[in-house]
Amino acid sequence: MKLTILGCYAATPRTLTNPTAQLIEIKNRLFLIDCGEGTQVQLRKNKIKFSKINQIFISHLHGDHFYGLIGLISTFSLLNRNNDLHIFGPKGIKEIILLQLKLSNSWPNFGLFFHELTSNQSEVIFEDDKVLVKTIPLKHRVYTNGFLFEEKLDQRKLNIEAVQKYQIEKCYYQNIKNGKDILLDNGTLVSNNELTFDPEKPKSYAFCSDTAYNEAIIPIIENVDILYHEATFLQSEANLAAKTMHSTAKEAATIAQKAQVKQLVLGHYSTRYDAISLFKEEAETIFPNVLLADDGESFEL
Amino acid sequence: MKLTILGCYAATPRTLTNPTAQLIEIKNRLFLIDCGEGTQVQLRKNKIKFSKINQIFISHLHGDHFYGLIGLISTFSLLNRNNDLHIFGPKGIKEIILLQLKLSNSWPNFGLFFHELTSNQSEVIFEDDKVLVKTIPLKHRVYTNGFLFEEKLDQRKLNIEAVQKYQIEKCYYQNIKNGKDILLDNGTLVSNNELTFDPEKPKSYAFCSDTAYNEAIIPIIENVDILYHEATFLQSEANLAAKTMHSTAKEAATIAQKAQVKQLVLGHYSTRYDAISLFKEEAETIFPNVLLADDGESFEL
Repeated sequence: MKLTILGCYAATPRTLTNPTAQLIEIKNRLFLIDCGEGTQVQLRKNKIKFSKINQIFISHLHGDHFYGLIGLISTFSLLNRNNDLHIFGPKGIKEIILLQLKLSNSWPNFGLFFHELTSNQSEVIFEDDKVLVKTIPLKHRVYTNGFLFEEKLDQRKLNIEAVQKYQIEKCYYQNIKNGKDILLDNGTLVSNNELTFDPEKPKSYAFCSDTAYNEAIIPIIENVDILYHEATFLQSEANLAAKTMHSTAKEAATIAQKAQVKQLVLGHYSTRYDAISLFKEEAETIFPNVLLADDGESFEL
Repeated sequence: MKLTILGCYAATPRTLTNPTAQLIEIKNRLFLIDCGEGTQVQLRKNKIKFSKINQIFISHLHGDHFYGLIGLISTFSLLNRNNDLHIFGPKGIKEIILLQLKLSNSWPNFGLFFHELTSNQSEVIFEDDKVLVKTIPLKHRVYTNGFLFEEKLDQRKLNIEAVQKYQIEKCYYQNIKNGKDILLDNGTLVSNNELTFDPEKPKSYAFCSDTAYNEAIIPIIENVDILYHEATFLQSEANLAAKTMHSTAKEAATIAQKAQVKQLVLGHYSTRYDAISLFKEEAETIFPNVLLADDGESFEL
């Protein structure tokens, strides 16, 4: 699992900072989360293959989280993309994109599917054989969801020495990986435990931006490996955070601590502060494992 | 008059090249022409005061000419702009912008006025005491206009030595600047020619992008000081130019030569070519005064 930050600053794109967009790579699948203006250029700078992105998740319809989407879709078209593209986001996103494609008379030559979200309850919105994605309903000025990405449990790992010792034929291997016990020709039942190792523990990633401090998300994100939580402000601007329905670094850390996550990654910084290290310092007074997102940074699990 | 190129490359924003956007400064007024994705960052890089932009002209609704507009409007809002903003562009642009403002629940706190264009004839779309702006109907895959910016003739310049020689009082100066003759107390009529110099010749700028080769624009742009004409391709890709309704460098130069403009500036280059100098070389076989636009370049008149 690898998280790549394309942009993690609040409000507007600037010369050296980009609005929200990030990639989470899970078992060779690449999911784009949010798509602020300039995301396609950030993808190029980070040498990401455009054709590997097949799902885009948009948290909410504030410009710094989706104004780059129409440009990215248009560029996919110019690059003669073939793969279907699935877009998950608040109701309204389909109308915004289709209106612009219609008026520019540039209908994409690939399948473009919208999955509009309206629920205020966490729900599964994407699932394949490797990954499950659920919404995390957030509290912000407009309808907003975070996203929880969960690896699925892999099949069990074959203990090659053991299966060779019992001279088990290859055609049984898949059954063993699926957890079945094996009855040998001599009538002995060999338990699956003897023939396999546990698979790797599935990893999980929770993206929570933008949101006011909201303890309701804790049961959804409990024990995740990485929590990305917005920290637009420091505690000294707690009044601004409350007014704009954003979080402070301390509040983000409090959520991380209460949800017992393994690692907190902060982002969505207001550009009013001199150094983003201030966010880490404040969060670490509450929760020990704090990392700072920054444009172009990657975090590997 | 000063032309600043914020972006002049075709199709998509890339790491080092930007889609179309430019500023024309005329007598202390600053007009933004087109607004591809990333224009607000280009404005910051070029240290342009956002509050000085009160009129934005959009040529057509292809993404590389307007996807940056919604982001710029949102940033104007965040910066607590007060001035009215006027947007001139094809019918449909109002619906695109208002839909996004509505869905993001972020109505601007300044006056936002749309002037939607539908005519296929050149028309005056903006006029104040200093500047006149007319459309230049272009031939492209969607409804497209270029824009002609004309300075208005200044008042005549006072010949201070002459007015002092005749001991004319200051209260008559404005009349003299307006071209009036003066009757002295001794009954002598002094002709305005003796008291004034000619004002500077008004300058003009024509922006023509995107367009196929189109001689119908020649009467509109005749004798302009600067013609910016798109040259997406070289003559070796004339078939592609025809198919996509773009121009080659040679075609741009032919228009410049037939319209007897003083200076041709080329832009809107396809990124398929190794060096933009190739466009200049090709154009100069037809027309001598060719300059190459490039992102961040300025041209002063």
